[in-house]
This record gives sequence, C-alpha cells and structure tokens, in this order.
Amino acid sequence: MKKKRNVYLKMKTLAQAREIILSAFPNRQPLSTERIPVENSVGRILSEAVTAKLSAPHFHAAAMDGIAVAAASTFGANPAQPIVLEVGENAFHVNTGHVLPEKTDAVIMIEQLNILDEKQIQIEAPAFPWQYVRKIGEDIVATELLFPQNHMITSYCLGALITGGIFQVPVKRKPRILIIPTGSELVDWRRSTEALKPGQVLESNSYVLGSLAVAAGADFSRSEQLMDDPVKIRNTVQAAVQGDFDMVLTVGGSSAGSEDYAKDVIIDLGDVLIHGVTIMPGKPVIVGRIQDKPVFGIPGYPVSAIIAFEQFVKPLIDLMNGQPEQPRPSLYVEPTRKVASKLGLEEFVRVKLGTVGDRVVATALPRGAGCITSITEADGIVRIPEFVEGLQENQAVKAELLKPVASIDKTIVAVGSHDNTLDLIADELKAGSTGYSLSSSHVGSMGGLMAVKRGACHVAGTHLLDTEDGSYNTSYLLKYLPGLDVRLVNLVLRDQGLIVSKGNPKGIRGIEDLAREDVSFINRQGGSGTRVLLDYRLKQLEMDPARINGYATEEYTHMSVAVAVLSGTVDVGLGIYAAARALDLDFIPVVTEQYDLVIPGAYYQSDRIQVLMNIINSDAFKKRVLALGGYSTEKTGEVIV
Amino acid sequence: MKKKRNVYLKMKTLAQAREIILSAFPNRQPLSTERIPVENSVGRILSEAVTAKLSAPHFHAAAMDGIAVAAASTFGANPAQPIVLEVGENAFHVNTGHVLPEKTDAVIMIEQLNILDEKQIQIEAPAFPWQYVRKIGEDIVATELLFPQNHMITSYCLGALITGGIFQVPVKRKPRILIIPTGSELVDWRRSTEALKPGQVLESNSYVLGSLAVAAGADFSRSEQLMDDPVKIRNTVQAAVQGDFDMVLTVGGSSAGSEDYAKDVIIDLGDVLIHGVTIMPGKPVIVGRIQDKPVFGIPGYPVSAIIAFEQFVKPLIDLMNGQPEQPRPSLYVEPTRKVASKLGLEEFVRVKLGTVGDRVVATALPRGAGCITSITEADGIVRIPEFVEGLQENQAVKAELLKPVASIDKTIVAVGSHDNTLDLIADELKAGSTGYSLSSSHVGSMGGLMAVKRGACHVAGTHLLDTEDGSYNTSYLLKYLPGLDVRLVNLVLRDQGLIVSKGNPKGIRGIEDLAREDVSFINRQGGSGTRVLLDYRLKQLEMDPARINGYATEEYTHMSVAVAVLSGTVDVGLGIYAAARALDLDFIPVVTEQYDLVIPGAYYQSDRIQVLMNIINSDAFKKRVLALGGYSTEKTGEVIV
Repeated sequence: MKKKRNVYLKMKTLAQAREIILSAFPNRQPLSTERIPVENSVGRILSEAVTAKLSAPHFHAAAMDGIAVAAASTFGANPAQPIVLEVGENAFHVNTGHVLPEKTDAVIMIEQLNILDEKQIQIEAPAFPWQYVRKIGEDIVATELLFPQNHMITSYCLGALITGGIFQVPVKRKPRILIIPTGSELVDWRRSTEALKPGQVLESNSYVLGSLAVAAGADFSRSEQLMDDPVKIRNTVQAAVQGDFDMVLTVGGSSAGSEDYAKDVIIDLGDVLIHGVTIMPGKPVIVGRIQDKPVFGIPGYPVSAIIAFEQFVKPLIDLMNGQPEQPRPSLYVEPTRKVASKLGLEEFVRVKLGTVGDRVVATALPRGAGCITSITEADGIVRIPEFVEGLQENQAVKAELLKPVASIDKTIVAVGSHDNTLDLIADELKAGSTGYSLSSSHVGSMGGLMAVKRGACHVAGTHLLDTEDGSYNTSYLLKYLPGLDVRLVNLVLRDQGLIVSKGNPKGIRGIEDLAREDVSFINRQGGSGTRVLLDYRLKQLEMDPARINGYATEEYTHMSVAVAVLSGTVDVGLGIYAAARALDLDFIPVVTEQYDLVIPGAYYQSDRIQVLMNIINSDAFKKRVLALGGYSTEKTGEVIV
Repeated sequence: MKKKRNVYLKMKTLAQAREIILSAFPNRQPLSTERIPVENSVGRILSEAVTAKLSAPHFHAAAMDGIAVAAASTFGANPAQPIVLEVGENAFHVNTGHVLPEKTDAVIMIEQLNILDEKQIQIEAPAFPWQYVRKIGEDIVATELLFPQNHMITSYCLGALITGGIFQVPVKRKPRILIIPTGSELVDWRRSTEALKPGQVLESNSYVLGSLAVAAGADFSRSEQLMDDPVKIRNTVQAAVQGDFDMVLTVGGSSAGSEDYAKDVIIDLGDVLIHGVTIMPGKPVIVGRIQDKPVFGIPGYPVSAIIAFEQFVKPLIDLMNGQPEQPRPSLYVEPTRKVASKLGLEEFVRVKLGTVGDRVVATALPRGAGCITSITEADGIVRIPEFVEGLQENQAVKAELLKPVASIDKTIVAVGSHDNTLDLIADELKAGSTGYSLSSSHVGSMGGLMAVKRGACHVAGTHLLDTEDGSYNTSYLLKYLPGLDVRLVNLVLRDQGLIVSKGNPKGIRGIEDLAREDVSFINRQGGSGTRVLLDYRLKQLEMDPARINGYATEEYTHMSVAVAVLSGTVDVGLGIYAAARALDLDFIPVVTEQYDLVIPGAYYQSDRIQVLMNIINSDAFKKRVLALGGYSTEKTGEVIV
C-alpha cells in the first residue's frame, strides 16, 4: 500500500457530517436477538414488543386484612341497625393478598369490625362492591402489551416483566466495536514498567472511548496498539470488518501528516465519506465505509477523540439500538469573560459553572484539544457556532451539562490566583456531607479581583504585594474594588523561593546570588505577583536588575520556571515550593507571601461560605497544609478586613 | 420468639424519618479501600484524593506538524524580508507530538513554510515563543490533585488517570446489602415450572430493589425467599448482620397484620427506630438498627417497596459512599384533572407527561401501590404534600422526572377510550427512528372528548354510538365540542361480542339468547360505549331488557366482564375480543363498532401527528391489527371530519 497524496476532502459542517453518517448506514442488518434471563436485562433494549403471559393479579385478591363478604349482604348496615355476619358462612377472614373466597366481592378492614365472638362479626356500615379488592388484571392483563420494541429495560421494568410471566427477555445483541489505538509514540500502561522517555505517551484514548461505548450501549474490544505502520493497521481493520465487529474505530493518525495512515487504509479497503469536519476539537475526523460497515478515523488528541465519538459514533450506536438521541440537559449561563473563537469552526468550549447570586456563571477552561483535564474539570460545554466570532461577557448562552444541575447549584466558585491549598479545600469539601464542591479557575490575582467586581465568583484567591509598605491585598481592594463590601480572609502564608537543580550544583543560597556571573536566571512576566515580589526584594537589597543574567527572559507560570530549571536552560528561577516539588527540584525559601481569599460581603454569611470557613479553620486542613511543605498556617482563617 | 402486640409506633413524616435515618447511622466505619485497575474504575468512588504521578506532557511537545525553531531566530521575518532557516541547524522537522529539540521553543506550521530544498526553509513571519508547543505540565502537573476523594470516576477520568500515571485506583468497596424476600405466597420465578395457583405471587421485589441498589452504587445479594416464619427470618437477618453485610432489607411483612413478622424480628435483635411513615405508597416501612447496622422492613407492594427504597435506603447508600443526594430533575406540569388525596399522607402520584401546545400536561396513573405498571408507565412523580387535599386542575405543580425532558417533549399524548391497537401504534412508533412515543391514558370515550376540550391531549380515542341514527362520534363532536376545530380519523372497526366460557357450554349464538332462562348475563355500567351498544341492539331486536337475567348487574371494564365469565359467576357478557382472548375464553361477534381518533386541528399538520398518520396508513400496521383478531381495517386512516 502506497502513501497517497494526503489532503483533507472539502470539510463538512457538523450538521452535514451527521446527515451523511446517519443516511450512509441505514439499519440494513438489524441486530440479532438474544434471550436473556430477566434478572440480567436492566439497561438492555427489547428487540420485539413484549406482551404479558400472566395477568396480575391472576385472582381476585384481598387488598386489606379483614373479612371478605358479598357486598349485597351488607347493604343497609348502619350504627343504629348493625348487621351480624357469620364467619364461614357470609364472612371469611382474609389477609392482604389472600384469594377472595367464592361468592364474595368486597373486603371490610379489620379496624371496622366488631368481633363479637369466633363465629360472629358485627358491622355498622355497608361495603360497596369490590372495595379493598385487587381484581384480576387490575395491574397487568395477559396478552396485552407490556413494553414496545426498542424499550430500554429499567429496574422498575423487572417487576412488570416477572409479574407478567416474562422470565427470558428478547433483547438486541449489543453492537460490537473494535477500537484500534495507533501511533508509534504510544506506550501501553499495562506494560509500562519504567519511566517514560521523552516523546512517549501513555495510551489512554482507547479506554476512554471504550467506556463511552459501553455507556452508549455497545460492547467494545481493544485491539493491541499499533505503530504507525499502514500495513498492520490495514490488516487489523480488514480483519475486524470481515469478522464479528459492527463498527471499527482507529484512533490517531487521522490528520493529514506524513505519518497519518488512517485515511489511506480506509481508501484502500473502502470509501472515505468524510475527512475533516468544521468543529474544534475534533476537526481531523474521518468517516469511512468498508463493506457497508462504518469505520472511523478518530483524532488522537484526547478531547478531539471524545468530541468525535460523541458527535459521530454515539448517534450511530443509538441508531443501531433503535434509541432516539437524547440531548444532554442544558442551561442558560453567562460567560464571565469574553471568549474569542475562530470563524468557520464550531467550537466546543469546556466551561466551569456555578450559581453566583442569581446567575449561573461560566468560566472557560483551557482550549487545547490535548488537555484531558479541560473536560474532566468541566461542568458543561458551550458551543460557539461556526459563524460567530466568540462569546460576549454576560450574554446568556446555552451550556450542555456534564454534571447534574443540583451539583452546579452547590458549587463554590473560586476565580483568581491558584494555590495548591485550594485543592485541599476541594478535597475536604468532598469528604464532608454538605454536598458542596469547589470549582477553581486560575486567572491570577488581579483576574480574581475583577471576577469579584463582576459578581462572577464567591471567592477569589489573591497575593498582591503593596511595594510601598510591604502589605498584601488590602491596598489593592481599596484601589480596585472601592466601595465594594468584601471580606478578606487569610488562607495561608506561603514561601516563594529559588528553584534550582537537584543538589543545587551552583551552590545558590539566596536572591543575592542571582547577580553572580556564573548563574543564569529566568524571570516571571511583569505584573505577576512573583515578579512584583522579586522587584520588591531587589529594591530592598539595593540590587540592580540589569546585573541579573536572564532578568529580561519571562515565563508565565511557576511550572514553566521550574521546567526551565529542570531542562538545564537556566540555573535558577523564583517560584513556589510546589512547583519545585512537582519536578523533584531543590528549593531555597527566600520570602513569605500572604495568600488571602476575597469574599463578597453578600456571600460571607451564606451556607456555602460558612462551610468553607469551617474547613479553613479546622485542624485537619491546617495539618494537611503544613504537610505539603512551603506553607505556614499561623494566620490561616484570620479575617483581615 | 413470641408474636408481640403489633401496632404502628407513632408514624413519622417523611422529613422526620429521613432525619432519623441519616443521624442514626453516622459513617462510623468508613468503607475500606480497594485498589483496582484503572480500566475497571468507571462509576466507582475514590476513597482518597488522587494526585498525579506524571506530568502531561512530560516533555515540551510539538502541537503541529512543521519545524521547531528558536523563536528569537525568526524575529523580523516578513514577506519583504523573509528569513531562511537551515534544516538541522536552526530548523528541525517535527510532527505533532514530537519532542521539541533542544534550544527550540516554537513550532511553525508546515502550511506556512516555503521549502526551498532539503536543507533550506524560508519563512515570511516570525514565530512567537511557545507557539504550537504543548509545554511540560500544560495538562497535568505531577504531584498536583487530579481528583478529590469521593469523586465518582467517569469515562473521561480514565484519560486523566492513565495520563497522570495512576494505573491502580483507590476506590471504596461498595456497601453490601442483603435482600430477604418474605411471604408464604411467594413463588420463585426461577423455579416456577407450572401454572400459579390462586393466592400465589411471583416474587419480583428483590430483583427490582437489587437493581436499584446496584444503580445506587451498592452490591446486593438475594437471600432465598422465606415463608412467613419468624424464626427463619430472624436467623437470616441475624446471620447477615453478624456477617459481611452493611445493610439488610426484609421485603414483605412490614405492616401490622397477623402474619407480619419484620418488626418482631428487629425488636428481638435490636431496635425499631421507625414503624410507619406518613407517605403513600410506602407507609408501612420499618427502619431498625441491629448492631449499629441499618435493617429495613420494606413493604411488599411493589410501588411501596420502590418508594421506600428510594426515600430511605438510597440516601443511606449515598451517605456511605460519600455522595451528595442528587434530586431527580424536575419540571412544572399541569394536571389535566383534579387529583384528590388523603389529608395526613404525602402521596407520590405517578403521572404520564407530555407537551401539549405550550403546556406540559400531567395525567395521573392508577394509584394502587400494588400496580407495578403505575410506575413503569410513569414519566414522573408528583408529590401531594401531607396537608394538601389534592391537586387542582391546570394548577402548575412540580413533577420529578423519571424520563429525560427530551422524550417528554416527543410524546404523543392520547387520552380517551383504550383499544389494544393503540399499543400497536406505540410499538410501531418505537420501531421507527423519529424519536416519538405514544403515551395513552384510559379514561373512556367521553373523558377523551373532555381532554380535547381542555387542551390536554393530542389525540383522543372514542367509540360513541348515536342511537338515533347508528352513526359514531360525529354527533358527539357537534354536541360536546361545538365550534372546536377537530379532525376525526378512523383507527379501526372492532367487534363487540359475547364472551362465553371456553367451548361455549350453553350454546349461545347471539344477543337473542341473552333472554334465555338458563343464561345469566353481566352488564356494563350505564354510559359506557358497550352499554349504549347493547341497548341499541336490544331496541333494534325489540327485546325487553327486563327479560335478561343479570341486566341490572354492572361491571366497569371489558376485563371485569370476562373475569366474571371465567370465574363462572355468569355465563355471558358483552365485550371486545381482546378481553376474551386475554383469559382464553370464547367470543361470538355480534356488532361492529367504529373506533376513531379525535385530533385537534391545531395539531393535525404537526410533525407528531403526521408521523402517527403515516403509521396508521401503513400496511404493516393494518396487518398487525388484523392479526390481533376482532378487527377490520377497511376504514382505517379515513378522515371522517
């Protein structure tokens, strides 16, 4: 098989692509029927209508404990002229569920009987015919429809099926899907015994897609992962299509690069119906048809793979299973900031959601298709249509929900600077039974203050140093949130320090050493808390920044600084302990900064914030903070303003 | 063990009961941890916070196919002054996912390169640092929190766990529940080889509750079913509590009758915390505590068992699993008729829902706790609070949804007289891929017309005979829906006939024989279509009703008439073929009646009604109607008005 000229076909829109897929695979070969024991049938789909074999009840049954009577024999009874019935003659003791004796058609509750003796019972009111009787067929009538074909069996249905005498249930066999992970960079975690080499990637898409396939009502098998080898991929796809599978997914290599073979393979064995859909993530998806079976080339980036599956594969599974597509529940939400997007692509923006005041606010997560956490962290997805250039701030848009509405209502929305102790709060919240959870978005300290100003969060983490007096945060509140009712609560004091290679080979001891000629430094961007802190210290130490080798080179996160040190690009950077620890680097604390939470006054007494405050003030939380290293809790929980 | 005086304790309200339960079983013995392979972990709950072991990417990775460069080496490039890079010196070919070569910090897309020859590449624009690069830790940073404890693992999470180097996942072992079905009347379907005897009931509750327990995140075992034998029940409960189980449910015998032993057993082994809650269904529930473990006495009626489980058992499973209770999604709906309820009991009314015009209308299903179909048929549950005497017509109330909102929107609401061919329509709808389904409520022909008048349905089935001229339905439309724009479409012609014992021992041949002295008859209630039909025929035949033995005895449904014949109470009744067939009785057709659908004009051209009309007019449908027997399709689909 030769490598073909590899360009995208004319790309399709999402709507066009779905139309093509659903019409290309009409359900010519319906799934065959399996008969399975009723007890295993929950979640399965009826392949044919099921009619009851038994009526329920199948006898007239007493619905109360008491006596069974012929109603006619009680007519006229009243307190002034009670009627006496003879046990065994015209009154018969019954318990709930007992068969109604012959010639009786009503039950009188035990509470309403005057039991004179073992043989005689007095009643003071008549019974009406069929009172407290469950008549034959009241629930289920034999021969009548219990459930139509394509009905998905629920837990409740088991009761109706068993009661209706259906012990073996005719269900559709599940569609069988083969998932073939491809890519020479992939490493199988089950065989991953040593450290990953640069360039290697743990294969995870097949597990995610397999699990989504199961949730969609299919069975899946995972093929051994394949190198970027067109012959092997071709042979595996061919064997799957000729064999038992109803659908094949190759994962990776669906784009138009020099090592992307999915398209060549499909062209070689059948037809490519679609290559490229104007969505992001998920653009380089391939839809093919080989021997009337759908074969998908799923993009390798994890979020692309998920979106491609949900938009194109799942609808086809639903079609085979005879199930209508169920759109996700949705909600109107307000983006807290403008979200730009590319014209010509329908973008699936992953968002965090939370109810702040009377609005559900949405904060966009990172956009990269390579970030699996952008979807595991998401509460919802907002679609930006192809011909819209982005989302406006505070303009309501529809979000498809990935989590229940109730959990969105119980989210504490934190927006601002990130600190790892926020993760401890998130964990402590989940440990309790309040139902609250923490959602934190990382936009920096100043971004947090702006979120408070816009009413877009319950809590903002901030560590803004006033270089005039060395205080934290308070002067910024006065300047940027003037007149706003907010509280400032200390979360932690945290060390910033010098991040150096393991073993500190250059023997760096403090800020003063940054001026050494043999030491190269990497800086943080202007305006970041850490940069402000460095400049403040340099001023205190009367050091000239120009003397620092690398002062002009800027990085944007603590982690980037640590990475520059790890890779040997520079000798040292300033950052927090957690970044050093993450990459197993050495850390020399040089300054302590104050990391506070800004909380709008309107929420301070709310249940959610009090739950948060209880955690912050707990010994358990402080103990965990200290165990992280690089923190002090001496001011933790203190209400500063 | 002696039978104790068996009365209810002071009944609790639902809120009181839940409070008692949740505080009686604080999570003293948290569930132990199991470490399971990541691929099997979906749906399980983290027993501890999980932090990443690996960063992702763990190297700077190219995010596009192209060349890697040092951004600084490209500054100043523009179309007028392009820069030429040397492959292998300051430009390096990379594909997406490749490791960024040393000393490079940006990728230029292949589309933007002028490839001069194998060694030289020209660019016309500068690269900015880190463009098209996925930096170390961009997705996941080693040591940082991936998911907090009590997080339920989703399909998406597998991607983050594997990528973060978590291959064995610490999850809570599931709570273990033993379900003990009790009741001497119970028959095990797995051993049910012959016909049920009167009084016997197929045990199904344990399967329903077990399936609900699994859905709630627990494991369940089913004990062998037990007779109403207090010693055996006691021993089984005791062994379960002393053994491995976290919770025990006895099912049946939870009330205060002479053969109800659940309470005695719990008192004997521990404490009864609650007996009786003011809810319906579910009132006779028992909550007990034996050796600090919860032991429930679940009522035996199927809907009572379900409500008791969902209100009392599931919250406790959630508590053990560290999961917040998720209320069902809900919707405001309008009851189409007044629904009475009992003061002092909170009633869970099962309702069918559908969007008719701009309202979501709710039609109450049968109320009996013994009717499993009242919950399998339901789209939602409306709670009528304890101190409210019922629901008002057209007054919005909250319905907890049992089905997705989208499927409620795609429901065709039929209210009126029942006919079995409506079930065929329901089945044909589900066979198609339109997503529509049929929900039919049985309130009789006149009830259907009233539902049309109230705007409470899309379709009403009706078979009302005009005894003046022998026509069907049209004169009733004029009289009861004057001025209303409606269409009348024939669904079927159906036989009404005489239902007699198998073999027709009395040799009955027609209506004339009803006047025979040796023949006993059972009538339908005044106003029913069948009664009108009989009286019309009697008039035609000039027969005196007084001569018919049993004319004055009335039944309310076709099935009740058939049952009266089956049980030998009477020799003959008038009804439809389906009722005779359900009980395997003989049927002598005597009259043909016209069963039509009334459709408001506003909906007639709607998508949903056109889908319905296509089915009615299809050969497949007509063929299935004829196969039922007792029908003619010669007018089927005809638009009468």
